[in-house]
Amino acid sequence: MRFIEKLENAIKKNHSLLCIGLDPDIDKIPKHLHKDSDPVFEFCKQIIDETAHLVCAYKPQIAFFSSLGVEGFSALSKTVRYIKTNYEDIPVILDAKRGDIGTTSEKYVEEAFTVLNADAVTVNPYMGRDSLEPFLEKRDKGIIVLVRTTNPGASDFQDVLTVDGQPFYLYVARKVKDWHRLYNNCVMVVGSTWPDELQKIRQLDPHIFFLVPGVGAQGGNLKKTLEFGLRTDKSGVVISVSRSILFAGDKDDFAKKAGEEALKYKEEINKIRATLFE
Amino acid sequence: MRFIEKLENAIKKNHSLLCIGLDPDIDKIPKHLHKDSDPVFEFCKQIIDETAHLVCAYKPQIAFFSSLGVEGFSALSKTVRYIKTNYEDIPVILDAKRGDIGTTSEKYVEEAFTVLNADAVTVNPYMGRDSLEPFLEKRDKGIIVLVRTTNPGASDFQDVLTVDGQPFYLYVARKVKDWHRLYNNCVMVVGSTWPDELQKIRQLDPHIFFLVPGVGAQGGNLKKTLEFGLRTDKSGVVISVSRSILFAGDKDDFAKKAGEEALKYKEEINKIRATLFE
Repeated sequence: MRFIEKLENAIKKNHSLLCIGLDPDIDKIPKHLHKDSDPVFEFCKQIIDETAHLVCAYKPQIAFFSSLGVEGFSALSKTVRYIKTNYEDIPVILDAKRGDIGTTSEKYVEEAFTVLNADAVTVNPYMGRDSLEPFLEKRDKGIIVLVRTTNPGASDFQDVLTVDGQPFYLYVARKVKDWHRLYNNCVMVVGSTWPDELQKIRQLDPHIFFLVPGVGAQGGNLKKTLEFGLRTDKSGVVISVSRSILFAGDKDDFAKKAGEEALKYKEEINKIRATLFE
Repeated sequence: MRFIEKLENAIKKNHSLLCIGLDPDIDKIPKHLHKDSDPVFEFCKQIIDETAHLVCAYKPQIAFFSSLGVEGFSALSKTVRYIKTNYEDIPVILDAKRGDIGTTSEKYVEEAFTVLNADAVTVNPYMGRDSLEPFLEKRDKGIIVLVRTTNPGASDFQDVLTVDGQPFYLYVARKVKDWHRLYNNCVMVVGSTWPDELQKIRQLDPHIFFLVPGVGAQGGNLKKTLEFGLRTDKSGVVISVSRSILFAGDKDDFAKKAGEEALKYKEEINKIRATLFE
């Protein structure tokens, strides 16, 4: 099944636009797990078991695993396998922000889709279309392109005005729109910390899916994000939340706390969705 | 020792501006190595032993390792350790093109410098300065920022004209120049396939080091690269060559052939250097 179809099915099945970002920072995971032989996997597993009925996707961030070396890479592999085996309806987005010359990007494609078996991967557009083509050609996978990122410094380059008076991020968004028309597998990363920019991108492309991080620890505005980001079918936005769910508790009941926090996000999103386009 | 100092020392000691890009594509490494318990490491080790006196740096590309999963990650770790143990004067550049929000970039810093113990890492500027700050703050390491990449599609975004009539890559180059003034650890990636752009960037910044891929398999022009790229001290350019050295032979004597090819590049570069600024 194509990634976007799988995502749409998960949104309907769980009635949720919430994606949980799996950022299992070893310095933040509960102390009692450090006795486990694979604390990072155990942390992710327990979070997943408490939240799989509440989400439309999981988004493991590769750096939180690879920063632990071979063991971390192995924990990531086990985490994706665990989701695929136990919750096969939930797509897995590898957050890796890859992109390189073609022959190297082919290897990143293998990393994401062969080795790690993800359903989608985030990519960085700076090197241009040919650097992303090995990804785009995987038509059943999701290729999620950075357009307007959440961080304060996003404006350094993404807001630079081009000669036609438009900011650079809109130039990138137009290209991604074109690629999606050709490959039918693109998603745009648009941070919830920039609602005005999000609105402009939605005006440019009324149909494409947005992956929207930044709600939660980074302070993005949920209401504006949905008001400006949703398509008229009240879908098309995946809200990715990481730290404020993962680290809602730090004791034995951390996963239960994470589940409660995830439920709050899911319901808050649905409450706002219900009031829009009426 | 700071990366740039280590690099300058290696350039002097080996009288070489050549960097070998370690892209140990499993589909291309000689068949007889596949019997080895760790063919990727064995391939790199033999290449390194034949070339360490000819180069100023090695540049392993992480995707060629991580695309093989845990074993590949382990082979990369062993390769860096092998260089550090046996050829401690030669700096190791991790080619990874990382960049993310600050908390995640901190983890990529750990991947590059704690887990893999590289001396420098390549990074992607699209997300802006704060995304690179965790890297920049490692003042003894080299932070090598993509400015103008070698691939044909580089022009898609890097050539977009900004409102002041300058192409985007020069806007990025100006920022990297500023960061280097503050952190004194930046290098710019400028492809040899774009000599005119390389010349403009050198005019903008007469002092900074360039890492220049694209000579060899990608067809970059060595003479123009040196003519336009070198500083007036005939240094400041690191020429990175991968495939045409690594895969010069495919039999038992592949490493010897790689050494011969590396020697040719080193000498050709020095021959051109000798004729310039006279």
